[in-house]
Amino acid sequence: MTLEPLHGDALRLLPLGGLGEIGLNMMALECDGQILIIDCGLMFPEAYMMGIDLVIPDIGALDGRTADICALVLTHGHEDHIGAIPFLLERLGNPPIYGTGLTLALLKNKLLEHRLEGRADLHRVVPRQEVELGSFRVEFFRAAHSIVDGAGLAIRTPAGLVVHTGDFKLDQTPVDGERTDLTRLAAYGEEGVLLLLADSTNVERPGITLSERVVGEAFAAILPTCTGKVIVATFSSNIHRIQQVADAACAVGRKILVNGRSMVANIAIARQLGYLAIPDDTLIDLRQMRDLPKEEVLIITTGSQGEPMSSLVRIAMDDHKQIEVDPGDTVILSSKFIPGNEKAITTLINHLYRRGAEVHYETTSEIHVSGHASQEELKLVHSLVRPRYFVPVHGEYRHLVKHAALARSMGMAEEHAVVLENGMPLLVSENGLRREERVNTGRVFIDGKGVGDVGVMELRDRSHLANHGLVVVLLALNQESGAIVYGPELFTKGFVPEEESQEFLEEAKEVVRQLLAEHSREAMTEWEELRVEVRKALRRFFNRTIQRRPLILPVVLEL
Amino acid sequence: MTLEPLHGDALRLLPLGGLGEIGLNMMALECDGQILIIDCGLMFPEAYMMGIDLVIPDIGALDGRTADICALVLTHGHEDHIGAIPFLLERLGNPPIYGTGLTLALLKNKLLEHRLEGRADLHRVVPRQEVELGSFRVEFFRAAHSIVDGAGLAIRTPAGLVVHTGDFKLDQTPVDGERTDLTRLAAYGEEGVLLLLADSTNVERPGITLSERVVGEAFAAILPTCTGKVIVATFSSNIHRIQQVADAACAVGRKILVNGRSMVANIAIARQLGYLAIPDDTLIDLRQMRDLPKEEVLIITTGSQGEPMSSLVRIAMDDHKQIEVDPGDTVILSSKFIPGNEKAITTLINHLYRRGAEVHYETTSEIHVSGHASQEELKLVHSLVRPRYFVPVHGEYRHLVKHAALARSMGMAEEHAVVLENGMPLLVSENGLRREERVNTGRVFIDGKGVGDVGVMELRDRSHLANHGLVVVLLALNQESGAIVYGPELFTKGFVPEEESQEFLEEAKEVVRQLLAEHSREAMTEWEELRVEVRKALRRFFNRTIQRRPLILPVVLEL
Repeated sequence: MTLEPLHGDALRLLPLGGLGEIGLNMMALECDGQILIIDCGLMFPEAYMMGIDLVIPDIGALDGRTADICALVLTHGHEDHIGAIPFLLERLGNPPIYGTGLTLALLKNKLLEHRLEGRADLHRVVPRQEVELGSFRVEFFRAAHSIVDGAGLAIRTPAGLVVHTGDFKLDQTPVDGERTDLTRLAAYGEEGVLLLLADSTNVERPGITLSERVVGEAFAAILPTCTGKVIVATFSSNIHRIQQVADAACAVGRKILVNGRSMVANIAIARQLGYLAIPDDTLIDLRQMRDLPKEEVLIITTGSQGEPMSSLVRIAMDDHKQIEVDPGDTVILSSKFIPGNEKAITTLINHLYRRGAEVHYETTSEIHVSGHASQEELKLVHSLVRPRYFVPVHGEYRHLVKHAALARSMGMAEEHAVVLENGMPLLVSENGLRREERVNTGRVFIDGKGVGDVGVMELRDRSHLANHGLVVVLLALNQESGAIVYGPELFTKGFVPEEESQEFLEEAKEVVRQLLAEHSREAMTEWEELRVEVRKALRRFFNRTIQRRPLILPVVLEL
Repeated sequence: MTLEPLHGDALRLLPLGGLGEIGLNMMALECDGQILIIDCGLMFPEAYMMGIDLVIPDIGALDGRTADICALVLTHGHEDHIGAIPFLLERLGNPPIYGTGLTLALLKNKLLEHRLEGRADLHRVVPRQEVELGSFRVEFFRAAHSIVDGAGLAIRTPAGLVVHTGDFKLDQTPVDGERTDLTRLAAYGEEGVLLLLADSTNVERPGITLSERVVGEAFAAILPTCTGKVIVATFSSNIHRIQQVADAACAVGRKILVNGRSMVANIAIARQLGYLAIPDDTLIDLRQMRDLPKEEVLIITTGSQGEPMSSLVRIAMDDHKQIEVDPGDTVILSSKFIPGNEKAITTLINHLYRRGAEVHYETTSEIHVSGHASQEELKLVHSLVRPRYFVPVHGEYRHLVKHAALARSMGMAEEHAVVLENGMPLLVSENGLRREERVNTGRVFIDGKGVGDVGVMELRDRSHLANHGLVVVLLALNQESGAIVYGPELFTKGFVPEEESQEFLEEAKEVVRQLLAEHSREAMTEWEELRVEVRKALRRFFNRTIQRRPLILPVVLEL
């Protein structure tokens, strides 16, 4: 079902993504029949989404309501907050988009890649600026995060004031000096906040998250001890991190080679907009690097998650044209082990050690800190904002449950802290809360140029093929007599080694022949039935002989 | 190449598995032409080994030498040390097998499952017992580990004394009081040790590993706070852990339901042999459980790694016939997040929270400790044993490198600490070390009843099918005229949704028809060439239209 227009002065909250999962962040607020969208992120595929390139939110619930969408506001420029825009912009009715400088710059670059430049109606805002959007007045406030120019939102609605933290941490010494705006949060608290929506990613972590500056100190400690080449891999969006790497490199007189498509792009954007200060003469290209002694070289690149095609992995596998790792070189993985990537990352690390490199990573050095607030930071925000109601956002289900529990532990009434999941609308007003009937949301898979065509069925087939391989059975029968004109012939992939298995496959064919012999006694009209019987017989045979369950595709021709 | 017999009084060390990987532990020692095998473990498949059930070592290097194998000695009963025996026993020439009581009991159970009971020649030993095995005298010494009845080995050879720690930690308060035998290690040091082989799993961890007893304290703290059912998931081989769960359950008056095939089997074995003390009247079955109030029930089960078919996952998905999780219940995952399983485990945890359960796991409570020695424990062993040479074992490549570095940091000569990988023989004698030419080793895949038939090629096809799906192109041509008798017909799996894609698939057929039209002009004899052309044309078409690369299987019939 899709969303009925809402009138009166209640506020409707509809999470479209990011509640019950990491990534895919997208939220709709509705008042007076007007809809404000917060963020529009993507998610990278999980292991079971075989062959999927990207995942975006299913916004079918908004069908027929696009005329009511007054704006899309962005908290920051991470993929899980802006990445779905190129795929959903038209479907959202191309609403005006509001965000800070770097956020829009990263979005522009993304639109460019999708040949959508100029299509979007972008409006740059600065922290503490307020914009009138339909029945909403949205004030952006600074939020320190693992990307430059992050923001939270204070949204004034007919129902009351809503505070959305975006992704944040309370870094007291951020690299760019831009702290999360506690002053504004305190002011909202004084004004009276109806509803708080806050980042739950690190709710399981006690204490407070370390300052990004700690990473700079780690670089400053490690680099002077390095004798060979230094390779630093990090996320290309983490401009603070890149700044600190550059500063540490300059301090020890190393020149910097920027490697990796997104790293090159983002550094160019950030330098151009003044978010990143790297002197021109410290940047070198591959040719210049070859002329320098290796102890004067630092390479900054991507691939810290062990992505198979990334240049760092190719370097580690000695499969990179221009860059190699030699004994005595140092590699720093300045990033988190993202859940699901651990195996790929440790494999990368082992390969680097095989090349004789020294490797620093999360578990051995403090060369990464999180961008998300830990428990004590969350508590501080709750006590400043003092909301009437609270809905945890940005987290897996257990994070949301624990964040709601944290709010209650600070005195919030049991029923005022509400765990929502995607597609569960909630009506909020001074008079209380009301849950509405669940609407359809979910995940849309992108595979190549196809958006949403690959679904559960295709994934099930891919998983079956992946785990058991394929057997095609080909048969041509005379349509009058039902006599075999050709076959049975078997073609297999990923099932058994064909050369070594001729005898075995002959047995399998014999199984089909016997089946046909029995069948042909009666008049054979039901080809579909025959296909089913062939599949059954072979399934039994393969299970009995080698205990495998390949995907069996019987093809019966009538000639 | 296989192994040439070795004579003279040098010792040959040949790692067959476990060096450069976690699992698959197997090592061959040779002296005077006689071979002693240490452990024979398996490995659970990594993500890229699609559809593989188990992985065992490739022992081709021993072909033709089985007559020289004097014995197989086992350090402990974990799968990665005994799991490959049922598959390799015959091929090893069925040598006598030596191990401690529980180790052999677990092996017997395994042989039973493979219908090999009675085939193996098993010899039970106790710690500090010495056995004469060909030109080796092997003394077993106690090693505390995450399984009961673990041992290390002191092996007296013509070349000198070799000490193999097995898997161990220096737990000063083990649950069964059986500490790692530091007294014997000290004595070996006094006697003079030629070569030390030591567990490297936790070499990246500073300090010392916590005592298993800490987990018991955690259970004792958590259980009294539980009001509903309690479900504890752990490894079925961790008898100490199970003992502590049982003790904690008894202390709060909960009855215990044992669930999960391997859990039931191992608890029966351990109780029978006296390694596990659980009063009969505290064990209940499903029927008795239903008659008890839930606050008097504790269920101990498997599935702590989020294995899709495990009973805990089925419970969490509300897909288990006899057991469900209700709001207020408590689930304790008393186990490590094994690398590669993190996603499956967190998914399990999120499902349990959806059911309203409270969940305790590694990252939130101290309900698991490692069974492997950390840095300070390793240093202590090195300083007691004072070996002339050192080869790190049991670890990924980076662990071996760091363990060798740890030995050097304690004063060992650079070249006396040697990082070996599987298949790299090393000759050791008083006169020094000599590396020999690498021999063939590797991983043998088990899929269903097939041992070793599924190889790199099949895995490549499975990966291709998994990521891009399948397109079968079927064509029947008249062998004289080359005219099309049937088709082109397309059958797809996991590629595009067939119903919705009829038009698109028609275009694809048209591509094939055009190709044939051109071809048929010249005399068509080269069917193989035609197949290649068809594949090329479709690959181009699919890449251009939807940017996908399905596995294309062209089938051309001549009729």
